[in-house]
Amino acid sequence: MERLDAPPDVVIRRLPLYARSLRYLLEEGVHSVSSQELGERINVTAAQIRKDLSYFGEFGKQGIGYDVEKLLNHIERILGLTHKWPVVLVGVGSLGQAIARYEGFHSQGLQIVGLFDADPAKVGQQIGDLTIQDFSQLRAVIREHHARLAIIAVPATVAQSVADQLVEAGVRAILNYAPVVLQTPEDVWVRYIDPVAVLHSMTYYLAREGGE
Amino acid sequence: MERLDAPPDVVIRRLPLYARSLRYLLEEGVHSVSSQELGERINVTAAQIRKDLSYFGEFGKQGIGYDVEKLLNHIERILGLTHKWPVVLVGVGSLGQAIARYEGFHSQGLQIVGLFDADPAKVGQQIGDLTIQDFSQLRAVIREHHARLAIIAVPATVAQSVADQLVEAGVRAILNYAPVVLQTPEDVWVRYIDPVAVLHSMTYYLAREGGE
Repeated sequence: MERLDAPPDVVIRRLPLYARSLRYLLEEGVHSVSSQELGERINVTAAQIRKDLSYFGEFGKQGIGYDVEKLLNHIERILGLTHKWPVVLVGVGSLGQAIARYEGFHSQGLQIVGLFDADPAKVGQQIGDLTIQDFSQLRAVIREHHARLAIIAVPATVAQSVADQLVEAGVRAILNYAPVVLQTPEDVWVRYIDPVAVLHSMTYYLAREGGE
Repeated sequence: MERLDAPPDVVIRRLPLYARSLRYLLEEGVHSVSSQELGERINVTAAQIRKDLSYFGEFGKQGIGYDVEKLLNHIERILGLTHKWPVVLVGVGSLGQAIARYEGFHSQGLQIVGLFDADPAKVGQQIGDLTIQDFSQLRAVIREHHARLAIIAVPATVAQSVADQLVEAGVRAILNYAPVVLQTPEDVWVRYIDPVAVLHSMTYYLAREGGE
């Protein structure tokens, strides 16, 4: 029985982890998995997995477990990963270069279709198949590829202005590596990658353990 | 009145964002801020800020707001940022190099004290002040600096083995960039940086908006 309530965001954030674990299982030649086994791989309880998946329908059979490939296909459909999503990347410093070179995007439903930087010395440089372009090309590339996803890897001081331009050109979801909170219209998704903040959330606990 | 219940992890994860906003305010020469203004900068309600801070004591005065510098100092003390934390970084591919070069760590209470890679061609190379070392030096460097924090930026296939070695050498908190969930003892903190999973959690919403 499919639940009618909308899944909370925390569930949506776990789905990609389920999908990745299932992909690893397939690569290992495993075709059936219990919620217990799947849970152990991602440090989630079996009950949590069953509850998360119950938002999207009925999966697996009591005592038999999940068909790995079927469940993976189903989760990929839920996540909209039945086609490649074009992504533009703004900011090609050392972090941006690492992002541009990361093969994990392409193999997992994402395709970087444009690299942009404000530094004239970088414009024209090649990274993989792509040439770094000037900001002035941003709108044209976004329109051409219908890109609705963008990655920001520029300094904090210019991140808001870049975000404004991305949104104006049609981007609806931003992954922001700049250490600053972005102000965007309500219908634009923004997520953050913030290693310093994450490390600080751990120093809190370590400081309490003593030894410092 | 200080609350006696322990703050939930979600509150601990927001504290670094408060601290960063306060740091930006100080740089702008702002010395007093209301919970309203602070909240607008990080997309959190004023009520949420007051509730979060209530776990740690009494801050700000009704109608006057927070003294920016005092509140920043207080939050930094709570996060254990009264001294620099030594961090080791394992994996110096293009992502690891970007991390090693990122100045945001040093300016925010973190100091990378060791770079390690398994590739003999990389060992001996210099990045900033640091020389990339062989894995065999890991334990000695961790002990010498009493490093309890580590960053993993190696391929997924070797991340678990690296984590095991880090924990054995005394590391208590790991920031993991490898796209795999790590199994560690209960008293070791692990947090993840996973851009693909984050992007997939947004494609979910975009796919539902239609237009694809």
